[in-house]
Amino acid sequence: MSELDTLIQLLAKLPGLGPRSARRAALFLLKRREQVMQPLAAALGAAAAAIRPCSICGNLDTTDPCAICADNRRDPAAICVVEDLADLWALERTGAYRGRYHVLGGTLSALDGIGPEELNIGRLIGRLGPESELILALNATVEGQTTAHYVAERARATGARISRLAQGVPIGGELDYLDDGTLTAALKARRTL
Amino acid sequence: MSELDTLIQLLAKLPGLGPRSARRAALFLLKRREQVMQPLAAALGAAAAAIRPCSICGNLDTTDPCAICADNRRDPAAICVVEDLADLWALERTGAYRGRYHVLGGTLSALDGIGPEELNIGRLIGRLGPESELILALNATVEGQTTAHYVAERARATGARISRLAQGVPIGGELDYLDDGTLTAALKARRTL
Repeated sequence: MSELDTLIQLLAKLPGLGPRSARRAALFLLKRREQVMQPLAAALGAAAAAIRPCSICGNLDTTDPCAICADNRRDPAAICVVEDLADLWALERTGAYRGRYHVLGGTLSALDGIGPEELNIGRLIGRLGPESELILALNATVEGQTTAHYVAERARATGARISRLAQGVPIGGELDYLDDGTLTAALKARRTL
Repeated sequence: MSELDTLIQLLAKLPGLGPRSARRAALFLLKRREQVMQPLAAALGAAAAAIRPCSICGNLDTTDPCAICADNRRDPAAICVVEDLADLWALERTGAYRGRYHVLGGTLSALDGIGPEELNIGRLIGRLGPESELILALNATVEGQTTAHYVAERARATGARISRLAQGVPIGGELDYLDDGTLTAALKARRTL
């Protein structure tokens, strides 16, 4: 197989790129050898070599503990549990959270053989104490909520305060387009003004 | 800027990936270090180093002349002119063409300052003789057809036979959904059965 075919096959594995867009991407790269292609090769190599999971929270960073766990200005008592690194990034982009994280790396799934051991839940429980606040920021899917329920049950013995993200109408959301579940949740959790 | 941010920024430059999908792709790669990330870094480096334009036709390959120009089983008298390498690949995938190619690398554009010199048109004319067939396989856009017209005019003096791709109803196309221009072209070029 030629260098070009190898490159296209590997690019096609990226989420969001199929065989056709992988060909377009390869062509784009070959036309921009110095500006994009070689820097991307170097960046991939550097990131693969330097980035590792944080032994405390599971975040990926070039340092261990990660920059968030090592940041003394962030509240060590607040631990926000997320399924995936992408969720951590989404929360960090808001700039609204100044505590720490715990990245599970997935959800419990009997079908896929993912149990509590696979998700670092034991390590999470070890980080909690009576002074902690555990914030469950798992996806509002069946799997996410099942996992949240399990984590909350296990965490109860540590005496930590347990909360979860509010559910309701998204900002800018139009009631007419919302699903029944969201509307029901928003109605149940209505706030007195 | 961290290794991760550099990687995400470079991935976001690929066509078809935006900032959000670049983050997803970076995360995907970091989870598949050995299987995808390191091979992709190596493939990018290898392709950037090995692949160069063919000095005859402008195709990209690890050899010069490219595999198509060097293939003696392919008719050297038939030269198919395409705008871009992606078009060459599309024609090759059909398996229906057994001649050679000439890749212009774009279309004439007074606005972008792309003239005949930028498109290797002189080199194309040099490849033609009275025994040649020049197949214009440029896109059916205004720019493509303007360029095709210009190439045909220049090639006329060489005595080469000049043809262009047929225009008409695509296979599987529904008349109701076709634009007027295609239908008009199909009607004008109707074939007697």
